Amino acid sequence: MTSAELFEQIRLKKSFLCIGLDTDLNRIPEILLSKDDPIFEFNKAIIDATADYAVAYKPNLAFYELHGASGWNSLQKTIKYIRKNHPSIFTIADAKRGDIANTSRMYARTFFQHLDFHAVTLSPYMGQDTADPFLAFESKWVILLALTSNNSFDDFQIEPVGENQKPLYQKVIEKSMHWGTENNTMYVVGATRAEMLSDVRKIAPDHFLLVPGVGEQGGSLKDVAKHGMNKQCGLLVNSSRGILYSDNSMRFAGAARTKAMLLQNEMETLLKEHKLI
Amino acid sequence: MTSAELFEQIRLKKSFLCIGLDTDLNRIPEILLSKDDPIFEFNKAIIDATADYAVAYKPNLAFYELHGASGWNSLQKTIKYIRKNHPSIFTIADAKRGDIANTSRMYARTFFQHLDFHAVTLSPYMGQDTADPFLAFESKWVILLALTSNNSFDDFQIEPVGENQKPLYQKVIEKSMHWGTENNTMYVVGATRAEMLSDVRKIAPDHFLLVPGVGEQGGSLKDVAKHGMNKQCGLLVNSSRGILYSDNSMRFAGAARTKAMLLQNEMETLLKEHKLI
Repeated sequence: MTSAELFEQIRLKKSFLCIGLDTDLNRIPEILLSKDDPIFEFNKAIIDATADYAVAYKPNLAFYELHGASGWNSLQKTIKYIRKNHPSIFTIADAKRGDIANTSRMYARTFFQHLDFHAVTLSPYMGQDTADPFLAFESKWVILLALTSNNSFDDFQIEPVGENQKPLYQKVIEKSMHWGTENNTMYVVGATRAEMLSDVRKIAPDHFLLVPGVGEQGGSLKDVAKHGMNKQCGLLVNSSRGILYSDNSMRFAGAARTKAMLLQNEMETLLKEHKLI
Repeated sequence: MTSAELFEQIRLKKSFLCIGLDTDLNRIPEILLSKDDPIFEFNKAIIDATADYAVAYKPNLAFYELHGASGWNSLQKTIKYIRKNHPSIFTIADAKRGDIANTSRMYARTFFQHLDFHAVTLSPYMGQDTADPFLAFESKWVILLALTSNNSFDDFQIEPVGENQKPLYQKVIEKSMHWGTENNTMYVVGATRAEMLSDVRKIAPDHFLLVPGVGEQGGSLKDVAKHGMNKQCGLLVNSSRGILYSDNSMRFAGAARTKAMLLQNEMETLLKEHKLI
């Protein structure tokens, strides 16, 4: 998928919503636990209920690995289900991998060939060696951690580096944007640092940004759009818990649909304000 | 396992060898491919053949995830086999994970509870949030990437940071060494930058270091010991391909034993030179 195709989906659905499939057995409706594969059953229901309002799904690998081999099966079934039933939806393996060349190649094959995701999140610490094997795949994406939404983001990411004392996350973007192109590289920039999105846009005006931290973590969608939207929208805003667990009865899917629709409505307004639809 | 207990193992075996179980179906003897679980069969044979000479085993997760659910089963059987048959051997999940608090907690449960590894490698980019959930487990370790052995290590790791313009990897060590102690935190420092081990030792004289890059990647064991050894040895030197794939006939395990023994012999000499045995 190219960035133009992704923008086309955003215009069609009037939404730049990414739904994080962080499926936690302790939080899904109890009645699902008696099923053969509760994680997949939950995901399937959430996907069917929200696909009208989302342009991307993003399972976080930690939630699947916790269940070992059976978790991998649930993940595989989930991605297969999305790719088959909603082929135009962008899919992100939130794996935050980061290894050296030959090992990175294995991870790339895992996520792009065996699981057929469109994109994988990567940590930039080991440099270009980590990203290159992923970038070698046509029409696939790497999403590099730049400025994250967690509390200890400031341990290293805003440390001033080099001669011009720019924060590390800016150096990461400046350097890595030449490894690939706007058609295969995105950055994670947390919504909790919305004002810093303007600084990111000075460096990377055309790249898509994956923005976590709206809702539960306190980021404002309006601020994100104000500082981060570009002429192709350029944003995928993620929501996980806020959508998945708004109701833990058997009406969970309907409740998730409502939550996703409310976010989509807000996004539609912002896309109109920015004259993108 | 404490650092004193690890040192005791090093003294007993006269070795600080870690063997990387990077098991690649394209490189193991063809005859094993007809077995039910070729990866586990290969690992088992390697472990039985080398356990006399190794103080640690380190499966790299990429090699297992590539095979999806069946790869996870192979990994689980491998760690179970080591923990049961060689309980004094230190075990490292080379996963290079790095996520935020609640997600990191899931990874910690996966590797420490479900799989019962002693240690996990982590990327420091997201700061203390990544490490804390792992450090909360008693007698378990985090091994943080500091200075890696790959070609593009210099994209960010040696970037001068902060007021005193220290390289980033030193800042990572300085800061993170206060998250835990020498009894639950190690650092990855590549053998290909042996001279930089002296700089690491100025900051962290007492921490154990996990050193990849000896052999295939050109690092010298003698230089690593010269610059990196401390009063408890303080080193786990990893070798993977050089041991695993020195013979691809059915004599592979014997060949691996010989390779491991040769490294152990060299290590014994170095431990004696440094008056540690």
